[in-house]
Amino acid sequence: MSGPERAAGQFAYEGLDRVIHERARLGVLTSLIAHPKGLAFGDLRRMCQLTDGNLSRHLQVLTEAGFVEVSKSFEQNRPQTFCRITAEGRARYLDYLSVLEQVVRDAAAAVTADAAAPGLAGLAPA
Amino acid sequence: MSGPERAAGQFAYEGLDRVIHERARLGVLTSLIAHPKGLAFGDLRRMCQLTDGNLSRHLQVLTEAGFVEVSKSFEQNRPQTFCRITAEGRARYLDYLSVLEQVVRDAAAAVTADAAAPGLAGLAPA
Repeated sequence: MSGPERAAGQFAYEGLDRVIHERARLGVLTSLIAHPKGLAFGDLRRMCQLTDGNLSRHLQVLTEAGFVEVSKSFEQNRPQTFCRITAEGRARYLDYLSVLEQVVRDAAAAVTADAAAPGLAGLAPA
Repeated sequence: MSGPERAAGQFAYEGLDRVIHERARLGVLTSLIAHPKGLAFGDLRRMCQLTDGNLSRHLQVLTEAGFVEVSKSFEQNRPQTFCRITAEGRARYLDYLSVLEQVVRDAAAAVTADAAAPGLAGLAPA
């Protein structure tokens, strides 16, 4: 079952949308999924350990994709940037998550099978 | 518990090694983890739905990182390129996998909490 006869494209993981998959953006979106009320720019930057410039750049990609909306307001007379995931972003993130779960399942199954059958691994050519 | 008071860097996911995280290489390494005896270049290309050039480029990154070894041999008088994950590659992939599982857990917890507490989500500013 684990031989090369397996289906073409089984490990292609096309559903790993590159807009979401990039490490920093994955962190940003996961933060925003975990905070559906939204997050201030500074809190998001801190949680994701990004620089101002990096977070701004990734937010631009995410807003252009329609996954995140950024609003500006004033709080105690100071300008405040506030970020929220959109309904579209949430739906796309959930699609992405289901593929990520498949990667984890494929990997966990492989690791378990490998550990359970050391004799099989021993058949490998030198 | 889900407010901005959460720890700095909680969503940084620094353990998502970029060498492994890139979508095509994640597919290549997952294929090779699932086939510890190794895979012929053509089988790997088919499973990951990559072009010859793309697979070659990603294999170069992975061999330079020491995660994969590529050997050339002859089979029925035809040159054969064979790819295997190294012990180092396997260890690093398992480290990566544990972070990926954390992302899935964080996201699943957030999605579940959000669905279970629509009243909380309703507190979000307009």
